[in-house]
Amino acid sequence: MHPFEVTILGCSSATPTSERNPSAQVVSLHDRLFLVDCGEGTQIQIRKYKIKLQKLERIFISHLHGDHYLGLVGLLGTMHLLGRTKELHLYGPAGLKEIIEIQHKYSETYLRYNIQFTEIDTKCTSIIFEDEQLSISTIPLSHRVPCSGFLFQEKLAAPRVDKDLLAKYKIPFEYIHKIKAGDDFTLPDGTIIANNLLTIPPPAPRSYAYCSDTCYLPELTSLINNVNLLYHEATFTEELRERAKETFHSTAAQAAKIAEQAQVKQLVIGHFSARYNDLTPLLNEAQAIFNNTFLAIEGAIYKVPE
Amino acid sequence: MHPFEVTILGCSSATPTSERNPSAQVVSLHDRLFLVDCGEGTQIQIRKYKIKLQKLERIFISHLHGDHYLGLVGLLGTMHLLGRTKELHLYGPAGLKEIIEIQHKYSETYLRYNIQFTEIDTKCTSIIFEDEQLSISTIPLSHRVPCSGFLFQEKLAAPRVDKDLLAKYKIPFEYIHKIKAGDDFTLPDGTIIANNLLTIPPPAPRSYAYCSDTCYLPELTSLINNVNLLYHEATFTEELRERAKETFHSTAAQAAKIAEQAQVKQLVIGHFSARYNDLTPLLNEAQAIFNNTFLAIEGAIYKVPE
Repeated sequence: MHPFEVTILGCSSATPTSERNPSAQVVSLHDRLFLVDCGEGTQIQIRKYKIKLQKLERIFISHLHGDHYLGLVGLLGTMHLLGRTKELHLYGPAGLKEIIEIQHKYSETYLRYNIQFTEIDTKCTSIIFEDEQLSISTIPLSHRVPCSGFLFQEKLAAPRVDKDLLAKYKIPFEYIHKIKAGDDFTLPDGTIIANNLLTIPPPAPRSYAYCSDTCYLPELTSLINNVNLLYHEATFTEELRERAKETFHSTAAQAAKIAEQAQVKQLVIGHFSARYNDLTPLLNEAQAIFNNTFLAIEGAIYKVPE
Repeated sequence: MHPFEVTILGCSSATPTSERNPSAQVVSLHDRLFLVDCGEGTQIQIRKYKIKLQKLERIFISHLHGDHYLGLVGLLGTMHLLGRTKELHLYGPAGLKEIIEIQHKYSETYLRYNIQFTEIDTKCTSIIFEDEQLSISTIPLSHRVPCSGFLFQEKLAAPRVDKDLLAKYKIPFEYIHKIKAGDDFTLPDGTIIANNLLTIPPPAPRSYAYCSDTCYLPELTSLINNVNLLYHEATFTEELRERAKETFHSTAAQAAKIAEQAQVKQLVIGHFSARYNDLTPLLNEAQAIFNNTFLAIEGAIYKVPE
């Protein structure tokens, strides 16, 4: 099973605290690295947690509140200064490109690598990246400014061929790719060995959904149904439900309701208001509704469960 | 003597290290706070070193390389979220206002306080702020983009009146302000007591110059002659003198030469390249030319000497 995991670099909401940095996380799938959000100080967190900076392949920015992107220009500059030449793909809402370009203009920065920029339509879901290993789609969220979550879906792998049976039936090497593609095999005596007897089915593909920032959005559940791991913002406890509504954020209970309704396997809550020194009330509130909930902790790695 | 001191929040050059943040420092004079440069993570350093954020009166940005201003939008936002209503004065080169405003536009940020923006002409020296306590002037520097240093000059205080003599000569209370203003005092018998016998001269005004980033610039000395404390960038050692020249930075020896030629009282060097884990070679190189040199260390407070 290939590793598929999420490293939290920041889990604070708008104002950082001495314990918590603003939003940023690294999604690692099949040894490929993706950065989701990039709050101020992300490059320092990347160094602290020994993430391989230049291996970052794609960066996804959910929305243009500072706590989700202010570390980006510094990170791009450091990649340049440390010698990056490999193209970087950057996804974000309208305005992000302009914000970066104006800063590069005044600092007279000419990056040694190309940035391939994709503007996200935050109003609908669409696949923004796809290859043979995974697809990445947007999840429309409801926040004070245009905002999008991201769904990382592993592709179904090819079935593995049972090596013992290859030997038993003396199947020639050049047939293996046909069997992987679904063919049966015919023995010299005409007996047909069905494909499913020769192969081991691949593991079920896993998926990870990042939903931050958003108000309580029941219609989310259809888009993230059955995901293996859900990161959902939980800025407040129910005591501040009205404040959550006004600011287009969610409570821990609301995050847990979404997890329960979407029947996800595991929930990580984050984007905590700076008012909470102790996060236990947020965890307790969520676990009362959805037991398999964890708190986002900086530096912690959450494996996407099978 | 009123306190006049500099707290270093960051002393790294372009790329931050795990030990050193990008440029930022707080100048404190007569219990008033000024921020000079604001690299990424400055708001976190401000919290760490318990600087009173909302007391910041004026912010000065030397130039538009990211390591000198990328923490600004986050800092302005946090001031707003924590309830600032007091006007803030912001000084920086052309482009800074545009960079901030475009980010506030896309984040739909409407600050509760007013920002009074002053665009700096980086080509000449001029007084950009003055009141009865101090004046702040720009120092034109030579860097890859328009760049300005800052000179903080304390004003000569009024002389203090000698309380023992006030009692001895029975000088009425309402005369004190006249004596402070320079008047002599006439005794009932017609004897004139000269002003200089009644007053204690005020301490000599102190001054602090911030010069970062700049190539070696001998013409600086006339602008910062005799300052009590000089902060001068020292990105490299002499071994990398050519690299310093190419990148419009200074070596530690060059910083010390400026200090020596300008006959400053004390030198603090900073803006160290990330390649130096151990800063001793930079210190030794500078001290060989100007002995009263100190390394900038994050969190350290440098008193402006008398």
